[in-house]
Amino acid sequence: MRDTFHADLDTLNDQLIEMSRSVAEAMRGASRVLVESDTARASEVIAGDTDINELQYTVDDRVTEIMTQRQAVATDLRFILSSIRIATDLERMGDMARHVAKLAQRLDPDGALTQTRPIFEAMATAAARIADKTTRVLETRDRLDATQLDLDDDEMDALYSRLLGQLSSQWTHGAEAAVDVAMIGRSYERYGDHAVRIGHQVVYLVTGEIHLDRPQ
Amino acid sequence: MRDTFHADLDTLNDQLIEMSRSVAEAMRGASRVLVESDTARASEVIAGDTDINELQYTVDDRVTEIMTQRQAVATDLRFILSSIRIATDLERMGDMARHVAKLAQRLDPDGALTQTRPIFEAMATAAARIADKTTRVLETRDRLDATQLDLDDDEMDALYSRLLGQLSSQWTHGAEAAVDVAMIGRSYERYGDHAVRIGHQVVYLVTGEIHLDRPQ
Repeated sequence: MRDTFHADLDTLNDQLIEMSRSVAEAMRGASRVLVESDTARASEVIAGDTDINELQYTVDDRVTEIMTQRQAVATDLRFILSSIRIATDLERMGDMARHVAKLAQRLDPDGALTQTRPIFEAMATAAARIADKTTRVLETRDRLDATQLDLDDDEMDALYSRLLGQLSSQWTHGAEAAVDVAMIGRSYERYGDHAVRIGHQVVYLVTGEIHLDRPQ
Repeated sequence: MRDTFHADLDTLNDQLIEMSRSVAEAMRGASRVLVESDTARASEVIAGDTDINELQYTVDDRVTEIMTQRQAVATDLRFILSSIRIATDLERMGDMARHVAKLAQRLDPDGALTQTRPIFEAMATAAARIADKTTRVLETRDRLDATQLDLDDDEMDALYSRLLGQLSSQWTHGAEAAVDVAMIGRSYERYGDHAVRIGHQVVYLVTGEIHLDRPQ
């Protein structure tokens, strides 16, 4: 049987998994606002982000509690400190979902969306895959899954480049819609980046190797 | 005289201050690329971001070292855990400066910039003020300065709204330049947001009060 201290660490990990599921769900909702023009769902996603933010405070409080309990050994300490960073990235992923939901409401289904929907659909699929893999990585700490997040993110980056490519010469829906499209795309792209950072944290937990995040 | 443990905490704070000065310098450089079309400076800002990222790892390593040294009491622990979060926000501020420098090189001084330069100049001034105040807050932990960052950030948000307003009907420089302008504006806006988060962390350090970051 695990002692109280380690049971608390398990609970901490469970809270990260819960956060990860929430940000997966949030981006799924946001993607539906976008690709299905389901604007009724937007307010739900936007309101739900407050719960995700509060989960981060729960994680932070638990970390403080755990740290005051006893002097942690190196491996436990590594996990505890990583939790703070992982929760920060998850919180940002929630922000990105909120951002997509907010901007997606304004896109004209018969205008800007006609030209961008296929790419957005692919971005939505990639984001869902990334989010589910992030949750799995937190559950299993599988190093292979964690590093595969880099590849999924490369795909997302490529989609983002293609999207920006649409906003060049052949764009006919005006500057304002172009900005909304680019901002939505960037939110998906950032969502992937944060998942990659979580993957690197997990690799660091498992191996002690730091993967330096190089400038994009 | 301070003992080794507290001397290490001082060093940790010095590293945060050093990071804060670096991100102030980075955004000043990026702003010169933007408002003075000093494109030669862009590569310097972009390369410098790697140093800022590495400062974050230095902070993280020091935190781990400090934590394995001894069981910290509540107030020290609060500072140690805050350092991780503050370093994360500073690292992101560095990213925002890099992003401005990168995109600013593409803006046409005789095109998109003619319409946006006054607002960008105001954003550059606001960013410099915010960055300097952030450094001062880390140096003095002055609660008033920390909360004033919220007001400075409100000004930045207002400038960002005005900038986006420029990209509506009267915009004549095409969708691609509109997207670059919006992304640069958003980077300044995010730069301010991260400074506000640092301000809240410092208030939390001084008072123990958590200021919940509400969705924008």
